[in-house]
Amino acid sequence: MKKKIGVVLSGCGVYDGSEIHEAVFTLLAIDRNGGEAICMAPDIELSEVNHITGQPSGAKRSVLAESARIARGRIRNIAEVQAGELDAIIFPGGYGAAKNLCNFAEKGAEASIQPEVARLLRDMAKAKKPICAICIAPALIAATLGKEYAPQVTIGTDAGTAAAIGQTGSVHVECPVTEFVVDKERRIVSTPAYMLAERISEAAEGIEKAVKATLEMA
Amino acid sequence: MKKKIGVVLSGCGVYDGSEIHEAVFTLLAIDRNGGEAICMAPDIELSEVNHITGQPSGAKRSVLAESARIARGRIRNIAEVQAGELDAIIFPGGYGAAKNLCNFAEKGAEASIQPEVARLLRDMAKAKKPICAICIAPALIAATLGKEYAPQVTIGTDAGTAAAIGQTGSVHVECPVTEFVVDKERRIVSTPAYMLAERISEAAEGIEKAVKATLEMA
Repeated sequence: MKKKIGVVLSGCGVYDGSEIHEAVFTLLAIDRNGGEAICMAPDIELSEVNHITGQPSGAKRSVLAESARIARGRIRNIAEVQAGELDAIIFPGGYGAAKNLCNFAEKGAEASIQPEVARLLRDMAKAKKPICAICIAPALIAATLGKEYAPQVTIGTDAGTAAAIGQTGSVHVECPVTEFVVDKERRIVSTPAYMLAERISEAAEGIEKAVKATLEMA
Repeated sequence: MKKKIGVVLSGCGVYDGSEIHEAVFTLLAIDRNGGEAICMAPDIELSEVNHITGQPSGAKRSVLAESARIARGRIRNIAEVQAGELDAIIFPGGYGAAKNLCNFAEKGAEASIQPEVARLLRDMAKAKKPICAICIAPALIAATLGKEYAPQVTIGTDAGTAAAIGQTGSVHVECPVTEFVVDKERRIVSTPAYMLAERISEAAEGIEKAVKATLEMA
């Protein structure tokens, strides 16, 4: 039986959804390490950003339908996924992790979390199943679990984001782009990816290592 | 000086644009083999397909703006790119290669090619610069260059598609998913990827090899 690894997507594109490279490297590393990816996303709307200009278009899109592009159609509504089905859960980055799965991008440490994301993440933490977060997604973990668990996570070296993570009750640890941080006690893995990467191969290397470590722990 | 490798995108998602995994593995392999990716797409519309249902939504999107999602915003209008700037060119697959860059999906061997795509592809062939095509994209190469160059390409083993490629004047060669075909004389590389892949790691392996071979030839 392959280990079942939840992958929580937040749209399709760095500026309004999941960072595409990070999500794809996550799926590849799960397969190469003998796991089975279970892609999921909340059934909510996102505010579209034009990826040429970086500016909001004013239009809305479905987080679930856009996430299905990365998953080649095999996607589940996160509301229907239980922690008991999964051996581990991974959150790729992209602004969607900080704007759609929660509102950390706007509210920082005071962020509120999309309810189904919060439920599944808390249930995974309670069951002591491994959680992996990439790029800005560790801020989502911090905002959800900070008060109760005080997890150690990294988003690389950005001082402002690190301070906001500290304000959630979590502990920020600096980390270079091709490495990852493990909170062994809380079984939480994180890697900076495009918070620091200047080349796609740098993001790939950190994610490959972090996902492998997550599956070994599962 | 890094070799400059054109990557021609056709949207963002397997059913109405570039196959996302194939495009990302292409970009990674270019970087890992010391090249610089120059992402581009035509400035035309595509017909949106809902990636949960696989059905057309009736809405239109911009091929250029959707492709920018895969390129993290660094994208050029293909109309402004000249063969002289490039050392090689690569076409990831996805239905967009057969519906947006040309209409092979509808017309088979009688396909017409988007004019700027045809211009750049013919100029690359004339200059004997390497061309790499992934998944269904070899059908675009066949439909554009078949009569003049009779290139050898692979889309894997699909008999109907292989027959349509033969009708363009090109020669179809069968190939397993983790391998690739090289037409040494015409400097054309192709690999089946998701025409055959049942796992993401199979698509990744064939693309890694094909892109490496393309850069070695450039």
